[in-house]
Amino acid sequence: MNYEMMVYILMNISKIEGMLLLIPTIVSLIYGEHDVAKKIGLLAVFFILVGYIFTMKKPRKIDIFAKDGILIVGIAWIIFSIIGSLPFYITGSIPSFIDAFFETVSGFTTTGSTILVDIESLSKGILFWRSFTHWIGGMGVLVFVMAIIPLAGSKSVHIMKAEVPGPTMDKLVPKTKQTAKILYFIYVALTLFEIIFLMLGKMPLFDSIVHAFSTAGTGGFSIKSDSIGHYDSAYIDGVITIFMILFGINFNLFYLAILNKFSRIVRSEELRVYLIIILTAIVLITIDLRNVYDTIPEAIRYASFQVATIITTTGFMTTDFNLWPHFSRSILLILMLVGACAGSTGGGLKVSRVLIMLKHIKLELKRVIHPRAVSNIKMDGKIISDDVIRSVSAYLLIYSLLLVLSFLIVSINEFDFETTITSIMTCINNVGPGFGDLIGPTGNFSTFSDLSKIVLSLDMLLGRLEIFPILLLFSPRIYKRRF
Amino acid sequence: MNYEMMVYILMNISKIEGMLLLIPTIVSLIYGEHDVAKKIGLLAVFFILVGYIFTMKKPRKIDIFAKDGILIVGIAWIIFSIIGSLPFYITGSIPSFIDAFFETVSGFTTTGSTILVDIESLSKGILFWRSFTHWIGGMGVLVFVMAIIPLAGSKSVHIMKAEVPGPTMDKLVPKTKQTAKILYFIYVALTLFEIIFLMLGKMPLFDSIVHAFSTAGTGGFSIKSDSIGHYDSAYIDGVITIFMILFGINFNLFYLAILNKFSRIVRSEELRVYLIIILTAIVLITIDLRNVYDTIPEAIRYASFQVATIITTTGFMTTDFNLWPHFSRSILLILMLVGACAGSTGGGLKVSRVLIMLKHIKLELKRVIHPRAVSNIKMDGKIISDDVIRSVSAYLLIYSLLLVLSFLIVSINEFDFETTITSIMTCINNVGPGFGDLIGPTGNFSTFSDLSKIVLSLDMLLGRLEIFPILLLFSPRIYKRRF
Repeated sequence: MNYEMMVYILMNISKIEGMLLLIPTIVSLIYGEHDVAKKIGLLAVFFILVGYIFTMKKPRKIDIFAKDGILIVGIAWIIFSIIGSLPFYITGSIPSFIDAFFETVSGFTTTGSTILVDIESLSKGILFWRSFTHWIGGMGVLVFVMAIIPLAGSKSVHIMKAEVPGPTMDKLVPKTKQTAKILYFIYVALTLFEIIFLMLGKMPLFDSIVHAFSTAGTGGFSIKSDSIGHYDSAYIDGVITIFMILFGINFNLFYLAILNKFSRIVRSEELRVYLIIILTAIVLITIDLRNVYDTIPEAIRYASFQVATIITTTGFMTTDFNLWPHFSRSILLILMLVGACAGSTGGGLKVSRVLIMLKHIKLELKRVIHPRAVSNIKMDGKIISDDVIRSVSAYLLIYSLLLVLSFLIVSINEFDFETTITSIMTCINNVGPGFGDLIGPTGNFSTFSDLSKIVLSLDMLLGRLEIFPILLLFSPRIYKRRF
Repeated sequence: MNYEMMVYILMNISKIEGMLLLIPTIVSLIYGEHDVAKKIGLLAVFFILVGYIFTMKKPRKIDIFAKDGILIVGIAWIIFSIIGSLPFYITGSIPSFIDAFFETVSGFTTTGSTILVDIESLSKGILFWRSFTHWIGGMGVLVFVMAIIPLAGSKSVHIMKAEVPGPTMDKLVPKTKQTAKILYFIYVALTLFEIIFLMLGKMPLFDSIVHAFSTAGTGGFSIKSDSIGHYDSAYIDGVITIFMILFGINFNLFYLAILNKFSRIVRSEELRVYLIIILTAIVLITIDLRNVYDTIPEAIRYASFQVATIITTTGFMTTDFNLWPHFSRSILLILMLVGACAGSTGGGLKVSRVLIMLKHIKLELKRVIHPRAVSNIKMDGKIISDDVIRSVSAYLLIYSLLLVLSFLIVSINEFDFETTITSIMTCINNVGPGFGDLIGPTGNFSTFSDLSKIVLSLDMLLGRLEIFPILLLFSPRIYKRRF
């Protein structure tokens, strides 16, 4: 284990998070919130200084092993979340530290579940930081670090692999750092477009910015307690629906679009299936809702928004889907599980994983009939190796096991079955709202016990980092030196 | 596909089910229920005759392929269930045919979910047949057929493989027919012991017989609406608890016990884990229930019974566990999923499958840290082949997929989330009761729609036959001729 390098990276993270904290400080100043500005500003300066001091000396050896990369990601996200929760805590916006930690993890992991009861009462600086955590976490804390600090080393791909969602990762260009930069360019550009489109719909500037951040990270924090429903505008609903769907697409495809390689985009099976699922879900739910809303276009509007917000695991709301028929809610629950595309900012199992598993099932069924048949699983015309299939199926098994364990612990709350199950589902898939009155679109997680909040925070991190970086932190084996 | 052989086997099944129907006919006569006796008797004679006529000529070729074996098992169970539901239907005990089919499938698959609202009003003959279906289905319809009819052919092992639960199957002796006979000998002997022990606890003869049948098949149908709780006897609770646990053990181990090979029994990892799970669950639930019951021994008594009845997927009840704290109920739900041992009459995923999956997960986690490490998964000291691991993980994936699909359809009922989910869980794992007031220990499935009843019946069959025989019936590929 290259401890020196690990400390170096973590201290860079401290420095960068300090710099990021300067932005809400400025926002607070603009809105005349001097007390908040002072507190966040002090935090910013402190973490910049600490980071600066400990990164003055560069490590002698910059190579890292795969397991180091995974471990760094796990530790980095936990430290990042602890630092990130301090603004909420020291400004008194969230008096309990565990609550502040939950809220921040929910932010960085782009979950969007909240423990806040009265969102509108928060200061602008804090509201900005809250949505900004989504934007930072969406693309990845370390991808960001790699994009802007001089962190060479051919092995930094291990870090990116551990942080970018999906069963496999393609580097866009040979150098990891270049790849990170391209990804951030696309991310920033799309976010800017969304801000512009929202302002065209007469959404105020501040609101447009924070909601664009939340959309980009597929997070879901809003500055209104009734979320996007507050604006009650079909245009705004439409813009956000489209941008949520866009941010749920593998960012590599946008890069291909920039390069004019549209034939390769069309070949993407994951994109095709993702769009088919969205369309099918909208149609089925619209049919189911025909008697719930006055007109069919209205049913389509609400169905589309909720389908997009759930499959991309954003978690904005324009209506209380708890009042919908069970069939529609079941579809939403399944979409929660499926999630968005690999390599996007969305959570869930990812469409490509589900697709590989469906093909795996099909092949196994074929093998039952013809035991000696030899076949392969293909995606986008390429053969998927047995290693990928094995690790994807192991992923699903571990995922199920985590659901079961969390279920056992969260059930101590004595909440009803629906609340318990969907609280875990929404956290591990980084969605945001659950089902039932307590944690549904109109509810929040404030009544959960501290133990449950910690478990659910871990679930969010497990979901965002796709299990291994967090799970390995609990494995004694990883701390053994073995070179 | 050897169609001639398939028809031959199915007609043998008709003959045998006809013979089995003679037994409830006799029971009806004993209790003076002449009308019921006449109706069931006629059915019996009809199916014996049909079977007899069509099995007079033996097929020329008796060899079958693996896929034929699987297909035969799937078709046989559906036909067996249709015939088996006729006694309920033509005697008017269950006026709706779909209800009668649900009840019979629930019987043969040893699920024990019921649509009956007033069990005590049924005639003795019908009550006997209802519990007898558990006993027949427990060991397997076709294992039974193979044990008693002159069905030679070295390939009959395919049929047994498809019907005996578990990821792998060991033949006790080289000949399948001999193996089937040994299994039935153990089954009959254990059932007789239970009848004797129950009668020693002053349970009436009829009650003892039917409850022994339900225990042996790990089914759960009782002749009392408050199940075993009706007798309110710690002794009877204890006897049934022990026998449920026994019937959840792989029958091969009993054979080894007869042969005095105790060292091999001790080596069985599955048995060890099965017993550890039971013990742990009892301890945890007893602690959780310390304030629910007056004394600790009482808590132990109710905890043990409910743990045994759920993990073995029997489904008897001595108390309404819906009134227990959520933590205890969550444990029960997890036990439902785990199920009993492979090669027993119990359902669920089976302890050995869960064990193989846990080892698979452990290995994958190790691989994340040391990508080039080479290791194997072992059970009972023997290496588990990659094929078994792959098929077990595919099994779990298909299982999850079936849960999701069933969930979608059953949710149309507009029942609450808990009812919908646990109705599917209890049916696919062949347990019996679900959670919530509607289908909990004091409820029944009568209010489900016909569509849901059909889906749940299929789930029961899928669970009992471990998915493939039923799933392949829906595959167009299996009907293609390819030799």
